[in-house]
Amino acid sequence: MIVEQYFEDYEIGFTRRTMGRTITEADIVIHAGQTGDFFPHHMDAEWCATQDFKQRVAHGTLILSVGVGMTATTINPHAMSYGYDKVRFVKPVFIGDTITVEAKITEKRDHPKRATHGIVIEQVTVTKQTGEAALVCEHIYLVARRQATA
Amino acid sequence: MIVEQYFEDYEIGFTRRTMGRTITEADIVIHAGQTGDFFPHHMDAEWCATQDFKQRVAHGTLILSVGVGMTATTINPHAMSYGYDKVRFVKPVFIGDTITVEAKITEKRDHPKRATHGIVIEQVTVTKQTGEAALVCEHIYLVARRQATA
Amino acid sequence: MIVEQYFEDYEIGFTRRTMGRTITEADIVIHAGQTGDFFPHHMDAEWCATQDFKQRVAHGTLILSVGVGMTATTINPHAMSYGYDKVRFVKPVFIGDTITVEAKITEKRDHPKRATHGIVIEQVTVTKQTGEAALVCEHIYLVARRQATA
Amino acid sequence: MIVEQYFEDYEIGFTRRTMGRTITEADIVIHAGQTGDFFPHHMDAEWCATQDFKQRVAHGTLILSVGVGMTATTINPHAMSYGYDKVRFVKPVFIGDTITVEAKITEKRDHPKRATHGIVIEQVTVTKQTGEAALVCEHIYLVARRQATA
Amino acid sequence: MIVEQYFEDYEIGFTRRTMGRTITEADIVIHAGQTGDFFPHHMDAEWCATQDFKQRVAHGTLILSVGVGMTATTINPHAMSYGYDKVRFVKPVFIGDTITVEAKITEKRDHPKRATHGIVIEQVTVTKQTGEAALVCEHIYLVARRQATA
Amino acid sequence: MIVEQYFEDYEIGFTRRTMGRTITEADIVIHAGQTGDFFPHHMDAEWCATQDFKQRVAHGTLILSVGVGMTATTINPHAMSYGYDKVRFVKPVFIGDTITVEAKITEKRDHPKRATHGIVIEQVTVTKQTGEAALVCEHIYLVARRQATA
Repeated sequence: MIVEQYFEDYEIGFTRRTMGRTITEADIVIHAGQTGDFFPHHMDAEWCATQDFKQRVAHGTLILSVGVGMTATTINPHAMSYGYDKVRFVKPVFIGDTITVEAKITEKRDHPKRATHGIVIEQVTVTKQTGEAALVCEHIYLVARRQATA
Repeated sequence: MIVEQYFEDYEIGFTRRTMGRTITEADIVIHAGQTGDFFPHHMDAEWCATQDFKQRVAHGTLILSVGVGMTATTINPHAMSYGYDKVRFVKPVFIGDTITVEAKITEKRDHPKRATHGIVIEQVTVTKQTGEAALVCEHIYLVARRQATA
Repeated sequence: MIVEQYFEDYEIGFTRRTMGRTITEADIVIHAGQTGDFFPHHMDAEWCATQDFKQRVAHGTLILSVGVGMTATTINPHAMSYGYDKVRFVKPVFIGDTITVEAKITEKRDHPKRATHGIVIEQVTVTKQTGEAALVCEHIYLVARRQATA
Repeated sequence: MIVEQYFEDYEIGFTRRTMGRTITEADIVIHAGQTGDFFPHHMDAEWCATQDFKQRVAHGTLILSVGVGMTATTINPHAMSYGYDKVRFVKPVFIGDTITVEAKITEKRDHPKRATHGIVIEQVTVTKQTGEAALVCEHIYLVARRQATA
Repeated sequence: MIVEQYFEDYEIGFTRRTMGRTITEADIVIHAGQTGDFFPHHMDAEWCATQDFKQRVAHGTLILSVGVGMTATTINPHAMSYGYDKVRFVKPVFIGDTITVEAKITEKRDHPKRATHGIVIEQVTVTKQTGEAALVCEHIYLVARRQATA
Repeated sequence: MIVEQYFEDYEIGFTRRTMGRTITEADIVIHAGQTGDFFPHHMDAEWCATQDFKQRVAHGTLILSVGVGMTATTINPHAMSYGYDKVRFVKPVFIGDTITVEAKITEKRDHPKRATHGIVIEQVTVTKQTGEAALVCEHIYLVARRQATA
């Protein structure tokens, strides 16, 4: 669904929450296959049994990709994804954990160079069914202004 | 391959370079399928033909996941991936582009709370066959010290 | 997104339209792999070159699955998918074709046995970038009534 | 395997039965990824635990696609799949259920417009290991006649 | 389809031929993902352009797996796959090549230890649309005898 | 990583050992999807429960492909994979088994026709977490000589 929003239209504090998604063994296998990261932390149940977590752990990039993907519900033609700041893997996600995502507009600032655009920060929090945060990051959007700054 | 390295062993300036990998239409289809992000920017060739880039663009999380995955070659049991800073999508990656990755140790700092560990920053640069950087980020590792700080 | 709607709330003529999606060779390969249907119509470019269409054709169940999936945007806890009627493969979909979907409420009728529920028909039309319909079907929903019929 | 059959050669009552296939969590993950349908009914084990079925349910289009795919064993160059009628999701298929398929020729009728072809109906029944039918549908084939009707 | 055959029933010279299958870029991407073999020979179009073949080449294990899989059409409950001999990668398979497979019973011999079973050799030849053999191997089956040898 | 080695540089007895990898239900589903081999031995848990092994078994070509793939760590531009001899499926691999691979140079011999190349044999052994060998084979490499034989 397309929802047009200019920089001026974003409101600090506006929050979206997604449905849940259970992270499966298949997700990890497919992510290893996509990225080529077959590290034993994700793929070797025997080795993991000898480590602190005792079981396989989802790749950090899997949780980031799925978490951000779960927020990709409305398209704003005036905004583009510019990057992420402060991505932190707070808690491991195990096979069978169910994650939900909250995305909250936390900051708006001028673009350092372009008068026609602003920067919008959406704080993304991926939470497990236990209530623990698994991943946090700041999603940075470059958004056109309705009216350029002087 | 396991390569043991303590915080003290990391050298600023140490650089790794990967082989190349061509980003395919199949990669984008699989990434959409894993993340649920079916935005027309990645999936709709007709719509893209009407946009600035004229063609489908790889998801940012695809290039981040594959780029970081390409650097996952040696396992250091004393280090763990802690997150990323300053992830920036500098240039779009199109179907058929070939990326290579350079990873360079750029910073070592004390952990704010733990005397037993330090923080190591590896600057990751994903470059296209054209020589342009497509994505940059700082990969943050939490690494055990051989000897705790006083 | 959850949108609660009882049988009484559905309006004949209400229409949704999706964004587009380009059907790729990878989609066909993945669908063959999921279903086990490796018929040469979908998988053998050499044989197809000797047939009427001159090229590989997407599986009917691929277009139905993707087409219906593209309409799966809002969840109504009072409705459940009950089946399809009059699924017709009107035109073949080739690799590189881009499809969009229109879903229109065309009929509401009493459930033959349950006073608590009604039947809602959503006419699904999958259209190619050429403007030709590729697939049509009636999606049948079983929907709870706010108030049971006498 | 190619088996040539004209309209005249189909016999009412002719029945085929397939081997079994266990529907796995991976099948559901791959189907969600292909279709973009990540509804919690299929993907969120926590939410499902609060619903009637208590567990994740396979997509209807997954069971239809796999069920029909399991019958795709012999190729008849004189027939083409034309669509489906009366597709009904009779019972949910859960992760770990094993399905088998029976396909039975139940009807032959003239094509409304073409003297050169007839319509053949194959009744498809997907059954679970419990003996319960999970899905039924009529698979409609358009089949060339050896001899056109007058 | 189940076809019961004892060792005595296999005839030297019996030959099966499959339909064709076009090897796609998606097949190579999926095979790399399954095996973890991301060598540039298969994945890096830029590097390949500097090599003898000028283009990406399918993994040997992909052609072996698909080639043998294409012959997996009838199940003999009295036989089991025991291994392969003389697997040779005769010609490279490129993206877009279409392969067909011929499987021919070429040898029957006593099992060195078991009087109840014999060894059957099926010569597998994977051929490209150019008529060139791409892969050959001997598929070794262990097959129960109807009557044990003295 | 590129490691240049001529025929003369290979040493009999040189041995490599990989990390482990757990074979998952998803691996089997993906391999069936890639090869088209949906035999009940791999896909039908109900039927398998009536057979000797009582459970689904990984495809032989899956274990061969993954096992060989796990050894694909260093690229030698002077060597190419030429085929396999004596591939034997010694023990079945079940869902949840973890395999590791040992690859050992066991033989060097002259090429029958080319004075510029030699043949190197690497014995590959895929072992389960139980210590049992699951698969063995000889991987045959064609390797350039630093100096052609007289």
